[in-house]
Amino acid sequence: MRDPRREPSGDKPAPKAVVGRVSLYLRQLEAFQAQGVSTVSSSQLGSALVINDAQVRKDLAFFGQFGYPGIGYRIEELIKALRRILGIDRDWPLALVGMGNLGRALLKYRGFRNRGFRIVALFDNDPQKIGQDFDGMVVRPLDDLASAIRDQSISLAILSVPADTAQRVADQLVARGILGIFNFAPMPLIVPPSVSVIAVDLSVQLEHLAYKTQAAQGGISFVG
Amino acid sequence: MRDPRREPSGDKPAPKAVVGRVSLYLRQLEAFQAQGVSTVSSSQLGSALVINDAQVRKDLAFFGQFGYPGIGYRIEELIKALRRILGIDRDWPLALVGMGNLGRALLKYRGFRNRGFRIVALFDNDPQKIGQDFDGMVVRPLDDLASAIRDQSISLAILSVPADTAQRVADQLVARGILGIFNFAPMPLIVPPSVSVIAVDLSVQLEHLAYKTQAAQGGISFVG
Repeated sequence: MRDPRREPSGDKPAPKAVVGRVSLYLRQLEAFQAQGVSTVSSSQLGSALVINDAQVRKDLAFFGQFGYPGIGYRIEELIKALRRILGIDRDWPLALVGMGNLGRALLKYRGFRNRGFRIVALFDNDPQKIGQDFDGMVVRPLDDLASAIRDQSISLAILSVPADTAQRVADQLVARGILGIFNFAPMPLIVPPSVSVIAVDLSVQLEHLAYKTQAAQGGISFVG
Repeated sequence: MRDPRREPSGDKPAPKAVVGRVSLYLRQLEAFQAQGVSTVSSSQLGSALVINDAQVRKDLAFFGQFGYPGIGYRIEELIKALRRILGIDRDWPLALVGMGNLGRALLKYRGFRNRGFRIVALFDNDPQKIGQDFDGMVVRPLDDLASAIRDQSISLAILSVPADTAQRVADQLVARGILGIFNFAPMPLIVPPSVSVIAVDLSVQLEHLAYKTQAAQGGISFVG
């Protein structure tokens, strides 16, 4: 499934904020397409997302020339290009590692599946969880990871284990061939440069909300 | 509880990435303090987090002058300052709105409480959920929100409702006086400028992991 239009390997990855907005553009373009619209301007695309049109053009220009003078963006073409750029023009089978409350919630999270992310294997090292059935899948011990990676073409893992075991489990994931880790444990992971990590630290993000809210209220203590 | 050292209200809020790193610095400083360390250099602080020392100094300089020549940072003093800057030198009582799987997982998420974020009230509009007890709290209908905000000094809400009702529920939260929303619904919310929103779109972040992983592997399709 090689694609000659794929980005050259030497390209520097785009900044996180740009990639995040491109995901939002893609969602909005899909919404326009579902409404039967076939072309869109940068200001139409931006205004639906409360992002200004210059920002939209700059973000998309990071990846190529997509607009047509006097027409704007051709929605079908741009959707296809953005899905390819984001790497979601294919399925990503996922391993879910850590079947506590968060893991079980993530298994039911609806936002993943319709973006090509399918959880196909469940892991936990707790003997009480091993063998339990969720969504038709049986929780397996981490020792089974190597065979799952091979048999189910898994390259990404969601890590929803407690902070004090996260690095140890991450080391096991890396040793068994996982290439990308979606980390929910509230601590930074140390991995080789060939392995990618996105950290979802909810308390860091909640602290950012506290900071923004305090700043918006003039920095004055307004609670308690 | 006014504090004369608090940032002046006219200050522009720091960029999201800076605030996120400051949260990580704070965690690392607390870890050093727990180990009995009293001063630290920017390179010691950075290396524990795989962030270079120039970045550490630049991020902290956004908020003030904290270092001492020949000494580095005084940990106790810097912890106090960063907690004040982030707005977590006080408690933030939270409302949790939406008691599905994700809401129930968030209620048990350990990362919140030890940062001063306490979930003190649960809301859902599903008649089957209203009246249920979780963690000693009874799920209430959204109509009770105005009194909870008043009686429990709530200014922040975690929104873990489905995408198709998120905007409607957010409108209710804003109308009843919520000042900050931690949004898990995979869609952007439209709120007045006085209300702050941090969006936690897990599929956008997972797409970013796919993008990074693909780029790290040379942009070549390596799965399937």
